[in-house]
Amino acid sequence: MVGILIVAHSERLASGVKEFAEQATHGQVPIVAVGGAVDGSLGISPEAIREGLRRIAGNDGVLVLVDFTSAALSVEAVLEDEASMRVVISNAPLVEGAYLAAVEASVGATLEEAAAAALRGRDLIKVQPDRRMRYQ
Amino acid sequence: MVGILIVAHSERLASGVKEFAEQATHGQVPIVAVGGAVDGSLGISPEAIREGLRRIAGNDGVLVLVDFTSAALSVEAVLEDEASMRVVISNAPLVEGAYLAAVEASVGATLEEAAAAALRGRDLIKVQPDRRMRYQ
Repeated sequence: MVGILIVAHSERLASGVKEFAEQATHGQVPIVAVGGAVDGSLGISPEAIREGLRRIAGNDGVLVLVDFTSAALSVEAVLEDEASMRVVISNAPLVEGAYLAAVEASVGATLEEAAAAALRGRDLIKVQPDRRMRYQ
Repeated sequence: MVGILIVAHSERLASGVKEFAEQATHGQVPIVAVGGAVDGSLGISPEAIREGLRRIAGNDGVLVLVDFTSAALSVEAVLEDEASMRVVISNAPLVEGAYLAAVEASVGATLEEAAAAALRGRDLIKVQPDRRMRYQ
């Protein structure tokens, strides 16, 4: 099964995304959340990313969802030394992408299929256009 | 100043988004996070949404960012009884939208400008296309 790595600048944010995606997939998909700097402040810990990747780097690969560019760059830097891992770093929105990818992975999707599902998070319609604006 | 309401199914997720957006704007923008059901489990509390809206419903309006459709529907239901509030519910991705809207609001944007900034979160390029795929 495809694993999902969530990388965010806030520990609470990363673990909240994991909590939500895990509930949707009943814990069937391996999801690891990495958030915050080593001291618990906002930031990114390359070492935590490396540990997270190693925990879920199975045969079916890892889809990485990030909050912003700097998180993606940290993952890329870690991957320089992890040549054997099969990984896709996604441009998808963090919460919506993680959710959709986890649901897809839970039914046995490939890494490419899970990555495609995550990207569909960009176009999610949460509220109908004609009801979106509410003015006094 | 425009206020931002974050509504998610997980308390941790909502407060993590708030934490991240507040750091980016040095706490200048009024941001309220509403997450989880009343008992702390995953879900949405209409009463918490109502309280949150009332806390930040100033003259410049409130931009609401949600994780999924059911959260947006809960906000719409609450607004049925809050006719005087100036509110936009956004289709933007939660984390990216909240961040971009908060930055925009912090420099004095209108509600419409903040809403437009949030939607730009859909097209964020976090990782360059040619570096996105990493295979064994």
